[in-house]
This record gives sequence, structure tokens and C-alpha cells, in this order.
Amino acid sequence: MEGGAASGSGMTMETFHECCGSSAFASEMMRRMPFTSLEHAVDTARIVWWNEVNVLGWLEAFAAHPRIGDVEALRKKFPSDKGWTAGEQSSALATANEQVLQELAEWNKLYEAKFGFIFLICATGKPIHEILAALKKRFTNLAIDELRIAAQEQQKITELRLAKLNIWRS
Amino acid sequence: MEGGAASGSGMTMETFHECCGSSAFASEMMRRMPFTSLEHAVDTARIVWWNEVNVLGWLEAFAAHPRIGDVEALRKKFPSDKGWTAGEQSSALATANEQVLQELAEWNKLYEAKFGFIFLICATGKPIHEILAALKKRFTNLAIDELRIAAQEQQKITELRLAKLNIWRS
Repeated sequence: MEGGAASGSGMTMETFHECCGSSAFASEMMRRMPFTSLEHAVDTARIVWWNEVNVLGWLEAFAAHPRIGDVEALRKKFPSDKGWTAGEQSSALATANEQVLQELAEWNKLYEAKFGFIFLICATGKPIHEILAALKKRFTNLAIDELRIAAQEQQKITELRLAKLNIWRS
Repeated sequence: MEGGAASGSGMTMETFHECCGSSAFASEMMRRMPFTSLEHAVDTARIVWWNEVNVLGWLEAFAAHPRIGDVEALRKKFPSDKGWTAGEQSSALATANEQVLQELAEWNKLYEAKFGFIFLICATGKPIHEILAALKKRFTNLAIDELRIAAQEQQKITELRLAKLNIWRS
């Protein structure tokens, strides 16, 4: 990833919390400020996510997302997240029809009932059939393995969101 | 493990819940009754624990235990668990003195702050210095790895408790 020195302005607890919905993540990132570059911030985010955030923090972060393909939720519940969620799901929604959204909704329910948290995937650039196929495949995983995969997906989302912040010198 | 056919009597939701504090585990074990032998019950418990119980159920099960080495909690909070917890920790307590119990209490706190759940170990037959050494070693683990280890320890405890039930023909 590219990225020069940070301007330092605009990095608040809220900024980090919007990148990742774990409070422990946000406060630990604040504690480790300032970041000299995007790379520095991303490297730190990785260390914090895997070493300083525990399973309770992961569940908190997962719960901050809308369900993938839930058009109503995107519109109603996430009007103020800079449009990030809608942007991340734009490829999925552009390739969706009613039938596939319905099927996705049903599989989302099955997944949540099995694993206890919502299906999370770094959706940027992914068409909806690819997302649905990933959900069906991951549904067969053991809970302990799926938790790790979900945490990896959250970290990918966090890194992309950090990169989108308008604070890195180009 | 040895064990003949089950008498079938005495297997209730409460029985299973005392073996493992996850409600999902207990109700799924009830659903899969009857068990023809201890081996059958243990094999089923393993399948249920890893496939039918998720991270929320694991946290629920972990929370049902007292802290290891917490003499007060053993006496006060677990008077009615058939004395299982006290029995499981008897080797630890027999080899303990005030200083090591104090050190264990401090490390328990550090562990809980890092991982978000209590330190769990199948303590049967383990002297206290071995338990303290295991705690210190496991404290360095990543959260995702430690969750798996804690779940493995719970499963060991569950299996020993199933074996202790007076329902297996010798």
C-alpha cells in the first residue's frame, strides 16, 4: 500500500471505531498514535487486532456491521458511516436480484444460528454470487475455525477503511 | 475409557449442564439420547462441543467455573455441584500455600483482562506449581489460539465428569 506521512489531524477515537467496531481496538490505536504513514497505521492495526483485542472485542466489532445484502439495513441503520458499508457492498448489490438477495438472507440466518455472529466478508469488488458461494462454503466450518476467518475478514475491512481516510500524504 | 450400557436413568438436562455449563451443549446432548455406553456419550459430547456449540456457548461454559485456586469461591459459590470442582482442584489445593495462591490469583486477573474469560485447565491430578506454570505459558498465546485451548480443556473436564456419573454399568 502507498502512503506518506500522516498529517496527524482527524485521528480520533471515533475515526478508529469507524474502521473497526471494537472499543478496545480504537482505544489501543489512540494510545499508539501518532502514525507516520498508512503502512505504520496498518501494521499497528494488525498487531492490535490479534494481540490486544480478544474474542469479546471481535464479537463487538462483528456486531457493528449490517448483514451482507441487507439493503434495508444499509439504508436505515448506517446512514452516517461515511457511506463505507454501502460502498463496500456496491459490487454485490450491483450484481444482485430479488431471488439471490432472498437466498442470501436465508443463509445469513442459518450462519448466525450456527456461529452466534453475523457472516462477515470483505465485500469490496466481490459480485454477489461469489459472496453467497463463500457463505455456503464457510457455513460448513467448525466454529473455532470460522471465528478466525471472520476476524481475518474484519482486519481486511479495517485496513481498507484506514486507507480511505483523508489523512495520508500522497 | 471403560463403561458398559447406560441404565438410562438419571440423564437429565441438569446432568449434562453440570458436566458442561453450555445450555446448547446440554439440550443437544438430551436430543441425542439415549447413550448405550460411556464411550458413546463421550464421542457424542465431543461432536456436540465442536460442531453444535459456538463461541457464545463456550464463553457460557467457561463462566460456569470458579477461578482455579480460588478457595473462597469453591466454598461459597459451588456448594451444590456434587463437590466436583473441589475434587478436580484437590491436587492443586493440597500442594498450595498462601504465597502461590496469591500469585495464582494475580495471574488469573491478568489472564482474564487479556482474554476476556477465566483461565480454564483440566486440573485433575495436577499440582499447583504445574497449573501456575501452564497459566504463565498460555498467557503469551494469541487470543484465537487460547480460545481453542480453553475449549479443549473444557472438553477434557466434561469427559471426566461424564465418566463420574453413576449411570454406566461396570
